[in-house]
Amino acid sequence: MIKVALLAAAALAPVAWFALAPGDTPAPSPAEIAAGAPAADWIDIPESDLLLMDTAEGGRVVIQLAPDFAPVHVGNIRKIAAARWWDGTSINRVQDNYVVQWGDATEKKALPQGVVAKPAEEYVRSQKGLSPNWIEWPDPYAKQTGFWKGWPIGGNGENVWLTHCYGMVGVGRNLAPDTGSGAELYAVIGQAPRHLDRNIALVGRVIEGMEFLASRPRGTGDLGFYTDPAQRIAIGSIKPMSEAEPGAKSRHQYLSSGSFRAYRDARANRRDPFFNVPAGGADVCNIPVPIRRAP
Amino acid sequence: MIKVALLAAAALAPVAWFALAPGDTPAPSPAEIAAGAPAADWIDIPESDLLLMDTAEGGRVVIQLAPDFAPVHVGNIRKIAAARWWDGTSINRVQDNYVVQWGDATEKKALPQGVVAKPAEEYVRSQKGLSPNWIEWPDPYAKQTGFWKGWPIGGNGENVWLTHCYGMVGVGRNLAPDTGSGAELYAVIGQAPRHLDRNIALVGRVIEGMEFLASRPRGTGDLGFYTDPAQRIAIGSIKPMSEAEPGAKSRHQYLSSGSFRAYRDARANRRDPFFNVPAGGADVCNIPVPIRRAP
Repeated sequence: MIKVALLAAAALAPVAWFALAPGDTPAPSPAEIAAGAPAADWIDIPESDLLLMDTAEGGRVVIQLAPDFAPVHVGNIRKIAAARWWDGTSINRVQDNYVVQWGDATEKKALPQGVVAKPAEEYVRSQKGLSPNWIEWPDPYAKQTGFWKGWPIGGNGENVWLTHCYGMVGVGRNLAPDTGSGAELYAVIGQAPRHLDRNIALVGRVIEGMEFLASRPRGTGDLGFYTDPAQRIAIGSIKPMSEAEPGAKSRHQYLSSGSFRAYRDARANRRDPFFNVPAGGADVCNIPVPIRRAP
Repeated sequence: MIKVALLAAAALAPVAWFALAPGDTPAPSPAEIAAGAPAADWIDIPESDLLLMDTAEGGRVVIQLAPDFAPVHVGNIRKIAAARWWDGTSINRVQDNYVVQWGDATEKKALPQGVVAKPAEEYVRSQKGLSPNWIEWPDPYAKQTGFWKGWPIGGNGENVWLTHCYGMVGVGRNLAPDTGSGAELYAVIGQAPRHLDRNIALVGRVIEGMEFLASRPRGTGDLGFYTDPAQRIAIGSIKPMSEAEPGAKSRHQYLSSGSFRAYRDARANRRDPFFNVPAGGADVCNIPVPIRRAP
């Protein structure tokens, strides 16, 4: 193995870290904790919340929708996908350390019937009745940050909202009061642009295929738009996962419960052998919720 | 223009925002503040602190070294570049949302004479005598965060250190007490891995060409290493900027003083027309210090 471990983000072989007495061996890394988690701590993501994007050049991208946070926009997106409206559209913008964005480059394609053209804001939702798993470390953008149902969130005591972490998917819009229909979407490919929180409708996240989206050539036009239509990346299809060919379907799970809490704490206090100084805290976007293919 | 402005990270045409009475027009965006800054607020980066990387496939990357933070490692890197040791080596690892890493894939190439093979730790430096420009917003990783001489830093009252923001360059190492020689380097290409702060020697940052490094294909091996040597990206040369061909030389400046403070505050309180809710704070890594070609 070449020098330099840095951090193994890749899943490692399961290790029975939780059975070891403290001090017997080095502390497990976050990836080891996830890999050793019991099956009961992995929660199935409903197939009905998944979209499958296939691009002409072979990229496969799976998106998990977040109907609990932006139900009208997510409803639009379900209709748009079911109508195969995105088939034949393209990725039109890749701005380094910011976003990759796709949709109808002509801006002329009529939306499918039933799509709400001008939805109301869905930037926050009430916290009432929810029991988020708040983290204790301070955050420059929100009074509280943490997780709920496997999603990274911010909160102010009254409302909660999704945070613009790497891989999160949001709805492109023009100036307010426009909130966007959901036909034009972006995914975050750099440092979390958390200043967009509460200013844009986040509707989901990429749970597979980020390495494809994030490695597309950057556009050289304003805001990273491709200047030559030939540079655009053709989208073969975006469809509900339920409509994927049997061989193309995939099932996914996110880490929850005690294993997630142990993972979260290990992200904030790295004590595995590479580290000298544990940070003693972590940013909500630097605690990526582990997601895996269902075994 | 297509829908969806999001954020103009690209430099805009200069605007005389500072001459306008409050309330007369929308507040300027951070990019507008940088574009309108007076020449005196742009500080020249010494040519002697610049390295120029050229890759076989045409990518041009400029790296600014940080001798104030890791003098022995930076001294090594200057010697390695001057000896053209990296010429003919390669980018060997690209791990999505983490790092791109380059060096001698064979791990067998002898280092140039004078390189300190096992430098001591240079993870922090004393704050004594420095006057950092601290930001007021809380941070989950450090007691204080802010900027000094155009660099993003963390601090604990006694020491300061560079923070692992997008584009920062660090020294690959194995397990402690190894600190790495500087022959194997990485650049951050995703969410700031701030848990590495104080655990690795940061030695500089990429100030031009990040869009090239960040869009390389991700490796599919452990830790994002390329599994097939043919996937490696050949490095034509890495040389001191002073040794670049006249036509290939470039001069760079970073934003400082009052213009930087106005930019920083605008990053935390977006009041330009796109925004509904200013965050009221910002993460040190989400306030990228503006850097431009010297006019």
